[in-house]
Amino acid sequence: MKPLEGIKVLDFTRVLAGPFATKILADFGAEVIKIERTGQGDDTRSFGPFQNGLSGYFVCLNTGKKSVELNLKDPDSICLLKEMVKDVDVVIENFRPGIMRKFNLDYASLKAIKPDIIYASISGFGQEGVWSNKPAYDLIAQAAGGIMSINGYPDSPPTRVGASLGDTSAGLNATIGITTALFHRERTGEGQQIDVAMVDSIYALLESNVMRYTVEKNIPQRIGNRHPISAPFDIYQSKEGYLAIAIANESLFERFAIFIHREDMLEDERFRTDNNRQNYQELLKVEIENWLCQYTATEAAALLEQGGIPCSVIHDIKDISESAYIKERNMLVDVNQLDHGLFKIPGNPIKLSSLKQTNMQRAPELGEHTEAILEKYKEMMK
Amino acid sequence: MKPLEGIKVLDFTRVLAGPFATKILADFGAEVIKIERTGQGDDTRSFGPFQNGLSGYFVCLNTGKKSVELNLKDPDSICLLKEMVKDVDVVIENFRPGIMRKFNLDYASLKAIKPDIIYASISGFGQEGVWSNKPAYDLIAQAAGGIMSINGYPDSPPTRVGASLGDTSAGLNATIGITTALFHRERTGEGQQIDVAMVDSIYALLESNVMRYTVEKNIPQRIGNRHPISAPFDIYQSKEGYLAIAIANESLFERFAIFIHREDMLEDERFRTDNNRQNYQELLKVEIENWLCQYTATEAAALLEQGGIPCSVIHDIKDISESAYIKERNMLVDVNQLDHGLFKIPGNPIKLSSLKQTNMQRAPELGEHTEAILEKYKEMMK
Repeated sequence: MKPLEGIKVLDFTRVLAGPFATKILADFGAEVIKIERTGQGDDTRSFGPFQNGLSGYFVCLNTGKKSVELNLKDPDSICLLKEMVKDVDVVIENFRPGIMRKFNLDYASLKAIKPDIIYASISGFGQEGVWSNKPAYDLIAQAAGGIMSINGYPDSPPTRVGASLGDTSAGLNATIGITTALFHRERTGEGQQIDVAMVDSIYALLESNVMRYTVEKNIPQRIGNRHPISAPFDIYQSKEGYLAIAIANESLFERFAIFIHREDMLEDERFRTDNNRQNYQELLKVEIENWLCQYTATEAAALLEQGGIPCSVIHDIKDISESAYIKERNMLVDVNQLDHGLFKIPGNPIKLSSLKQTNMQRAPELGEHTEAILEKYKEMMK
Repeated sequence: MKPLEGIKVLDFTRVLAGPFATKILADFGAEVIKIERTGQGDDTRSFGPFQNGLSGYFVCLNTGKKSVELNLKDPDSICLLKEMVKDVDVVIENFRPGIMRKFNLDYASLKAIKPDIIYASISGFGQEGVWSNKPAYDLIAQAAGGIMSINGYPDSPPTRVGASLGDTSAGLNATIGITTALFHRERTGEGQQIDVAMVDSIYALLESNVMRYTVEKNIPQRIGNRHPISAPFDIYQSKEGYLAIAIANESLFERFAIFIHREDMLEDERFRTDNNRQNYQELLKVEIENWLCQYTATEAAALLEQGGIPCSVIHDIKDISESAYIKERNMLVDVNQLDHGLFKIPGNPIKLSSLKQTNMQRAPELGEHTEAILEKYKEMMK
């Protein structure tokens, strides 16, 4: 039995944050019924890249789900949905706060029908409060949440994290909320409401950066690839490409110095402690690159790894996607989308021993399951 | 009842990824027993910033946990731990693969004692396979996982995400694995093993970037704050500070043009569709900044928000931490660390209605609970 087998999820989410969450639930065996706007469906169906007319963006977020086309402005649809709610475990949505209430599909309305419903909402700025009505996209959540101010180089403008972290972190948090609520319901019989905001999710990822402000009143700045505490901890230029080296304690530094035949650095007061190395990291960089310039990044990585020095070449998306590692970890999986051909999508990074490797079920065509699913609930309404 | 009340977690994790996960479990009511190295404890106890001798870094990741000092190289300690395992629900560790086996504390060993144990491991490169022995820090996971290649500006080197996303994303994934496994155990009586790798966690966050490679064979590059599909979607220079503006569809662009009194842009073929705006986004930027230069970012944000245009000033860590929003969302909470004074730490972004607001319990002193907890298990061993 898959861990979430038998769990039914009524999924009103669109675009990224919500579908990212329900994709994990589907991977774990939940039946995810995706409610899509009649005619158009999820916005991402029209986002590139396309293969034989099907959006790769949509596919990577929606495999294993069922698609039901419905017009939420039609009262009959709402009646039908309310019938469905009696039969599901989880409702999830990422509309702007207030929209689900307009449709009479808010938590209070659905709890009245199904008292133990688990109801998760994802929004930019939370369900209530000063900023709850502000529209949010990933860039907005990243700007508001503080992470852009510490991402990038000192001489560059604030920098958006190059993947949609506002959405995906909120999706992960919603998933934690839902799985926790499922466990809670199993023991207590009670449902609950889950309120996840993208800005909160970004803020929670700042970890010790927040502490540097609240404890020391220092406002963390952009420091490129450096570490706020340790050195050497940066990327360094080789003969060809950059190499990331991360040395976070004294014994590693000792091993490193010996390995690059620079035992003299161990006698040098300026490099004696992490703290001193922080203060002289420009000089340290020169010394490291003096050694590194003899090798390509790949060669140097192979050498340093023999010495157990934490390092890595900087993979681009092709490098990592084609690596033996990703293949072995099953982190790039095939999805057979029939007429649209085979797609390769990122795998689930949460490897559960209860979940045996199975073929990834494809993403649904728009409305593919409308009849089959609605028929059942129309019957029930009679 | 808190959602994870009654759940006992034996926590061997150190530094960031693991403690980030068990902090969420503790917030949700689990009893987290943190095993710390005799004398030294978690490395982060010696990481700044400090307040009255206590590490803010440690506090923000370890509130509400119990601390037991043990030497894992001492066979008596292992015996005691095995006694404890019989009494706990979850074991979690983030040592390098193989270390727990050396201590006889690997999944197979503990499953033999407690068949339904849930056992989560976090590592850089997974428990098995080609790279599993490579040492990993956040920078290494980010470099290997591909995100650095798409983070930053086209003319800047690959850029580490400015918060430790390799750790925190792995922590979130481990938490999802554990809560899912708890649910699974509740229904089936079965435990399981969870294997989360930092590199996989980073890779899974790349979302559609992977698709652009697998579908189109395009290798995504660094594009600063721009959106791969939509425009205007960037940060723009105002009279004072940058403003993030995110316009992801035609109707929003129409509203925006009208709002800045530039209806003429709607007649301009170059700005007609998202696709055209992408191609002319440098020109678009000039036009937007021509308008924006009259205002500070804060003024412009207030104006545009009236028109429902998604935008935000770029908060630094102080701005967001001091905001009414963070206060209202309870995302910066007080922890009373007794002699060390009051700390303010990031709150839990997963707002569960079953979890009433309570005071955040403090982080433990090293070994604070050693006697109280071990005494019980010593008794049981007799």
